[in-house]
Amino acid sequence: MINASVVGASGYSGVFLLFALSLRNDVQISNITSNSYAGKKLCSVYPSFSGRKSINGFSDLVFERYNEAAISSTSDVVFFCLPHGESSKHVPGLLKRNASLKIIDIGADYRFDDLEIYKKYYSEHNSAELNQDFTYGLSDIFHEKIKSSQLVANPGCYPTGALLPLLPLLYSNLVDASIPVIIDSLSGISGAGRGLKLQNLFCEVNNSVKAYNIWSHRHLPEISEKARNAFFEGSREDGEGPETIEILFTPHIIPTARGILTTSYFKLKYGILEEDIFSAYNSYYDGNPFVSILEDPSMVDIRNVAYSNNCHIAFEKGMDAGNERYVKVISAIDNLGKGASLQAVQNMNLMFGLTPETGINSYSPFP
Amino acid sequence: MINASVVGASGYSGVFLLFALSLRNDVQISNITSNSYAGKKLCSVYPSFSGRKSINGFSDLVFERYNEAAISSTSDVVFFCLPHGESSKHVPGLLKRNASLKIIDIGADYRFDDLEIYKKYYSEHNSAELNQDFTYGLSDIFHEKIKSSQLVANPGCYPTGALLPLLPLLYSNLVDASIPVIIDSLSGISGAGRGLKLQNLFCEVNNSVKAYNIWSHRHLPEISEKARNAFFEGSREDGEGPETIEILFTPHIIPTARGILTTSYFKLKYGILEEDIFSAYNSYYDGNPFVSILEDPSMVDIRNVAYSNNCHIAFEKGMDAGNERYVKVISAIDNLGKGASLQAVQNMNLMFGLTPETGINSYSPFP
Amino acid sequence: MINASVVGASGYSGVFLLFALSLRNDVQISNITSNSYAGKKLCSVYPSFSGRKSINGFSDLVFERYNEAAISSTSDVVFFCLPHGESSKHVPGLLKRNASLKIIDIGADYRFDDLEIYKKYYSEHNSAELNQDFTYGLSDIFHEKIKSSQLVANPGCYPTGALLPLLPLLYSNLVDASIPVIIDSLSGISGAGRGLKLQNLFCEVNNSVKAYNIWSHRHLPEISEKARNAFFEGSREDGEGPETIEILFTPHIIPTARGILTTSYFKLKYGILEEDIFSAYNSYYDGNPFVSILEDPSMVDIRNVAYSNNCHIAFEKGMDAGNERYVKVISAIDNLGKGASLQAVQNMNLMFGLTPETGINSYSPFP
Amino acid sequence: MINASVVGASGYSGVFLLFALSLRNDVQISNITSNSYAGKKLCSVYPSFSGRKSINGFSDLVFERYNEAAISSTSDVVFFCLPHGESSKHVPGLLKRNASLKIIDIGADYRFDDLEIYKKYYSEHNSAELNQDFTYGLSDIFHEKIKSSQLVANPGCYPTGALLPLLPLLYSNLVDASIPVIIDSLSGISGAGRGLKLQNLFCEVNNSVKAYNIWSHRHLPEISEKARNAFFEGSREDGEGPETIEILFTPHIIPTARGILTTSYFKLKYGILEEDIFSAYNSYYDGNPFVSILEDPSMVDIRNVAYSNNCHIAFEKGMDAGNERYVKVISAIDNLGKGASLQAVQNMNLMFGLTPETGINSYSPFP
Repeated sequence: MINASVVGASGYSGVFLLFALSLRNDVQISNITSNSYAGKKLCSVYPSFSGRKSINGFSDLVFERYNEAAISSTSDVVFFCLPHGESSKHVPGLLKRNASLKIIDIGADYRFDDLEIYKKYYSEHNSAELNQDFTYGLSDIFHEKIKSSQLVANPGCYPTGALLPLLPLLYSNLVDASIPVIIDSLSGISGAGRGLKLQNLFCEVNNSVKAYNIWSHRHLPEISEKARNAFFEGSREDGEGPETIEILFTPHIIPTARGILTTSYFKLKYGILEEDIFSAYNSYYDGNPFVSILEDPSMVDIRNVAYSNNCHIAFEKGMDAGNERYVKVISAIDNLGKGASLQAVQNMNLMFGLTPETGINSYSPFP
Repeated sequence: MINASVVGASGYSGVFLLFALSLRNDVQISNITSNSYAGKKLCSVYPSFSGRKSINGFSDLVFERYNEAAISSTSDVVFFCLPHGESSKHVPGLLKRNASLKIIDIGADYRFDDLEIYKKYYSEHNSAELNQDFTYGLSDIFHEKIKSSQLVANPGCYPTGALLPLLPLLYSNLVDASIPVIIDSLSGISGAGRGLKLQNLFCEVNNSVKAYNIWSHRHLPEISEKARNAFFEGSREDGEGPETIEILFTPHIIPTARGILTTSYFKLKYGILEEDIFSAYNSYYDGNPFVSILEDPSMVDIRNVAYSNNCHIAFEKGMDAGNERYVKVISAIDNLGKGASLQAVQNMNLMFGLTPETGINSYSPFP
Repeated sequence: MINASVVGASGYSGVFLLFALSLRNDVQISNITSNSYAGKKLCSVYPSFSGRKSINGFSDLVFERYNEAAISSTSDVVFFCLPHGESSKHVPGLLKRNASLKIIDIGADYRFDDLEIYKKYYSEHNSAELNQDFTYGLSDIFHEKIKSSQLVANPGCYPTGALLPLLPLLYSNLVDASIPVIIDSLSGISGAGRGLKLQNLFCEVNNSVKAYNIWSHRHLPEISEKARNAFFEGSREDGEGPETIEILFTPHIIPTARGILTTSYFKLKYGILEEDIFSAYNSYYDGNPFVSILEDPSMVDIRNVAYSNNCHIAFEKGMDAGNERYVKVISAIDNLGKGASLQAVQNMNLMFGLTPETGINSYSPFP
Repeated sequence: MINASVVGASGYSGVFLLFALSLRNDVQISNITSNSYAGKKLCSVYPSFSGRKSINGFSDLVFERYNEAAISSTSDVVFFCLPHGESSKHVPGLLKRNASLKIIDIGADYRFDDLEIYKKYYSEHNSAELNQDFTYGLSDIFHEKIKSSQLVANPGCYPTGALLPLLPLLYSNLVDASIPVIIDSLSGISGAGRGLKLQNLFCEVNNSVKAYNIWSHRHLPEISEKARNAFFEGSREDGEGPETIEILFTPHIIPTARGILTTSYFKLKYGILEEDIFSAYNSYYDGNPFVSILEDPSMVDIRNVAYSNNCHIAFEKGMDAGNERYVKVISAIDNLGKGASLQAVQNMNLMFGLTPETGINSYSPFP
């Protein structure tokens, strides 16, 4: 039995994480915290957890204030679902009390190799000394390292949707970096969280589609750091071409609660064929239970991965004289599933020596 | 291991039933049939079933044409998800080949005690001789009878949402039948199925709300028959008042894929208190894993039961001189979950001697 | 040229009123006020008013703080779009400065004949002495009185949708009041305004349908007062039956921005025929440019009246022994159009001696 | 008074065109045709046109079969809203009967300079001899030519959204064509028309976002032809760089009825500044009543142009070493308004010597 606590459990990623954990009989919840709702029952805040007979205990859960002593002593793993800058205040104290506590941070604090980037795009760091002890939790790529990690930084939602199709191509040295990679992403509204902001109101976003932070979104440096690492590793042997890779990333908001669709444009190195791309994906995702390469790009749809931990990818190369060096790759994830809470569960599975798919549904419900 | 076949598996109730069965490791699929998609893989029609590694076999399923010999020999249970008039053609042949085959019909053919009603509202019946062998599968009320049934007629979606709040009040003889019970129901669009009809197009129903078939919907006689049975049973001892109960039922379509919200208006017998109503519900639903009585009617929301087998109910009685004899009851179900495929799974559980909640998620995902 | 000011112009009814006035070349805007946005251009808050060439001046409008002297001296008519309790603070001062100023209050302050009801359901009244000078602005019924009024209280949105189908039946004495009239209303989310509340967030209301304030909504006493007046007037000659009429009203929230669909259930007096109902409606709405009686109830849809000042009504009587005395009436309006800002423009037209349809679009855009 | 006929009036662009014409008192409708609905009243097919008092005649319109003699003799202008290949069958006959008849084709038949492209992407042409007599009706760019045209080919919806931001930059020779221009477009579902197709069903597209025809959409060659013409004209004097420009275009479907958001990525020629871009747009759109350049790209939102003939554009240039040569341009139109029927009305205005904004609303309704 895994004892799990969720810090910041009343936001959208927290509550979906609780749903995901409710599916399992090998996990029990120690503590759930919420500043806003401390003292209230989970099912009074989210009636979807109501049940006259609380089969697995979730209907009786009560939000509490954060209590370091309680959490550190009762938990095998702690999930943080807090705004940036918060988990890094709490992690040092928890580890001091319980040196073997496993931690999965769904927030941004420990995602960057280079702390300077974090400082530039977010803020000063509250426990910089721990940063290098965290593993970047892009599970489907970095599973081996995650298996032996105690501390994991769960990736951002846009980066998950962008990096799963991108990294295999970079590691395989297929991309001509003489021009930027373009990543155009469409996200559902839950990505903005549960805050009381005008731009989250139904009447403002229903029938609305727009781009935002078109040059400055905080997920760009996360995508860029991981992409550049992969580009460096993939291209270091050929000793030619540019030394780094430039990403242009444009996030958009679309009127749906969940999901991210990512349309990426790559220029391929001379002579690269479709089969080389297939081969690159196969070398990373063959036998993977969550990442699927579909044949037809129009089958890649956020609705087909909603509520799931799946990532669907498809690509198509241009065939005419002017575009034959270009490939478009479409990928879809659920921003709260694969992009947050279910990837966190996948990471938990790896950290506890379980298969990655343990207790995670294989498919999306439809319609 | 239960071997299950799904006839008519490519419609919305069929495909959600497949999703529900994919959650279990004690069920395996023998056959899935579809006239339109015979020969195609499930995951090519519904890419949500894609998976590079078909963990539980669903990614490899292929739609077939209906084959009586195959289905009868390989299956322990057959689910029918067909338009009315179809299952009743097939059931006699299946039972002739396999007399102990369990059948759960999600369609309308065997729902009525009184075949004349079926004929009036639907059509001639194709196997009238079997009608009396079917048990009406409103699981949370008729569980004891279902446990010993081989053949079950799954209720309609509107009737499920209407009868779960209504029947306990009638059995408990709380309702003054001198005026009609009013049932005002709001259904998501999936209730109309996957047919290519103008009224199912996004641009026609988005931003649209309307009533339809306001005096003549086929689910009215189903609600009425079951309600009148319960009224008769509940009131036979007091020997006073009307001999039957009248239902006015108005279905509406709302712009969401799933869910039914039902607002019912009852006149109470003289002297009935709120606690009598609670007591009536408790006597039927105490300890029930799926039906919950919530305290606040505004917490009853289709989104809180989406994708689940739960039914949420709340009520409030008038307090002023003119309305103190009236009570409003609000209930919410998922039309494809509790209103179709998950109630079918609950029935299967009962028919196979399992607890009703076996392999059914306890809660709804949010948001 | 009519000089109009809009107080509280940055909410949803305010901004849609500005849109409606932008269609006219016989109206010009004197002042628009907003506490939150004072000093900002209308088109920076609502980019839908952007225009490189401000053809009719709206692209250049700037929100100002409320200024009694300015507004009273520059305006022929002032529209109030404020929360209850606010307009009644301002109206006395305005009238002191400009005794012939026309006022149309879209808020609730002057809607009730009986101030005690206002006090019970809202709050103390800030200018009770003016209450009797206001005409209840249900334009399509009370047009003659409105034509000679200087001060008009625009009805609430639910009351408009409920009273337009109800009042002709009551005035014509068709309704058997021995049992309550039931009014079941479904409203789009803009009815809750632009406030930063959890229940207005897209992720909370998308895919959500629920009832709220099921016995206590503030629009119930408004409906009841006007209905009882009409019932009294309609039935006073026959001297039999109940002395008043009871309304049960249940508001629901549906996931669309705009629109109210109202389903009403009436018991008819003995012997009333469908043609009597037609005749009742004809006597009130024949030749009316905005209220239409459709033949088929399923054609009454909020989408068919969206953005318009139209009200669609259809009805159907039961035909069986148990229900032949009951009639269901379905009506649809746009809550911000007919239910607020466009009815206010219709009232303005009447108050200025124009035809009611002046400068108001005849139809709804589709799709 | 302009006498107008609409051929194919029962589809989405036809019916929105009728709505647009219903706003005017200088236009009257001669004939509306529909094969599917011939003999039915407009208001029975689209109840949004109902009216007890048909103020401007639209409530009484009846769909007819196409009748060349009637249409040619009663109309000053004929709008075609038909699938490709249809208008080109009818136009020659109409012109034979009435040589001065004005024609505006909302379909694709006469949009291309190069008929070979039409044949490759659509089909054989049914009146190739007339193709060169049609003017490409991108009103805000080609208004001078349209003013003197009798025959106008209205642009496609994606091309309108893509070309309005693109052409001024190409004419002004700002774009470095050594790499492709990338155009990523998001369209509402009405763009797919009113056909009974699975992909138009609410339950299929609600909560769905996907790309489609990612290398082969028929609007790509239309965008490319017009862009290449402009590139050729803009760059012919500098005699350096590539001879043509390559476009990568990816259309996506988003769950909203209306609107197209276009995100374009350009590489700028060396030394081009933000003010050069402003200046390019100013030279084309200064004083234009419909095209607005907004300051903030996140203000460009399809909801702000819904139901209107407006196009909102904003851009932002990269500022870092790796991206400073790149600019992103965001534009929004209503696909049925500016992208079809309202641009057709604008063209009609120009062809009849009226100002372009005659009878066209200045703004979008909100919310």
